[in-house]
Amino acid sequence: MKRIAIDMDEVIADAQYRFSEWYERDFGIKIRKEQLRRQKIEDIINPEHKEAIKEYPRKEGFFKDLEVIEDSTEVIRELSKRFEIFITTAAMEFPFSFGHKLNWLNRHFPFISWKHIVFCGDKSIINADYLIDDNAYHFERFIGQGILFSAPHNAAINWPVRVNSWQEVKIYFDGK
Amino acid sequence: MKRIAIDMDEVIADAQYRFSEWYERDFGIKIRKEQLRRQKIEDIINPEHKEAIKEYPRKEGFFKDLEVIEDSTEVIRELSKRFEIFITTAAMEFPFSFGHKLNWLNRHFPFISWKHIVFCGDKSIINADYLIDDNAYHFERFIGQGILFSAPHNAAINWPVRVNSWQEVKIYFDGK
Repeated sequence: MKRIAIDMDEVIADAQYRFSEWYERDFGIKIRKEQLRRQKIEDIINPEHKEAIKEYPRKEGFFKDLEVIEDSTEVIRELSKRFEIFITTAAMEFPFSFGHKLNWLNRHFPFISWKHIVFCGDKSIINADYLIDDNAYHFERFIGQGILFSAPHNAAINWPVRVNSWQEVKIYFDGK
Repeated sequence: MKRIAIDMDEVIADAQYRFSEWYERDFGIKIRKEQLRRQKIEDIINPEHKEAIKEYPRKEGFFKDLEVIEDSTEVIRELSKRFEIFITTAAMEFPFSFGHKLNWLNRHFPFISWKHIVFCGDKSIINADYLIDDNAYHFERFIGQGILFSAPHNAAINWPVRVNSWQEVKIYFDGK
């Protein structure tokens, strides 16, 4: 059975939206969801606020109850019948995220065992056939096929395998 | 540069000794260190206490300030000059352990970056050339060479590559 490793933030969990929620809470400025889909949050906000929002992921609660990226639960549930699914997230940078990430996965992806959850940093340590991630730098030393999950921050990145949604992930794996 | 993945409990961190400390605290019975090196703690204690001590790793504080396994710091520091070192621990089973494990690594192995720390469950996800572990079942689907680190609980296990101490690990890698 081939193995798919899947990143969390911006792939199955909507951390960008949390940035916008906290930004509105702290600075009173609302960012529309459609805008977040087209532009990096750093390019939308007042440049003076950049440093403040950079710290958000290090704060308690940032990763709590994030919204689920559209169609990810259904498509991954289907894929899990034909592939070994691992969740591989670079959580080590944000130790406050550990508990929230685990709770979130148990809640939204209960069909994924704790044995298949990996908190890491450098993803070249992952032994899988595919890695779905929004950060192409993880593919540089990855032993399998990197699949770039589109996000505004990676729009300018040139990578041969790119998917724009979980429906496109489904199609990519249809023939596999 | 070849890569060595290294387990934590009973390989670099002495969790068995913590069991004995808490056992003495709870039941007033002291277990000598030499005894712990020869026998599994389950075979030493009163059988009636088995269920109680099984729960210890799930309790807050169990993984805090564990003793360092002899020579591990020095040997790993030396190995890190010639090999990529990753710490790969099946921490997902004990979410309370996350913070303590990270603090412990930062304190005793400050030369290992957070990017090279992995909390996982099923270690077949680890892409490394070697895995030093006290549980041989992790080697079954591991893609590299498993190196069994001796502990009383694995004394009866038949595995071709076994080391009894960090000095033996050093010797094993001398020619590599």
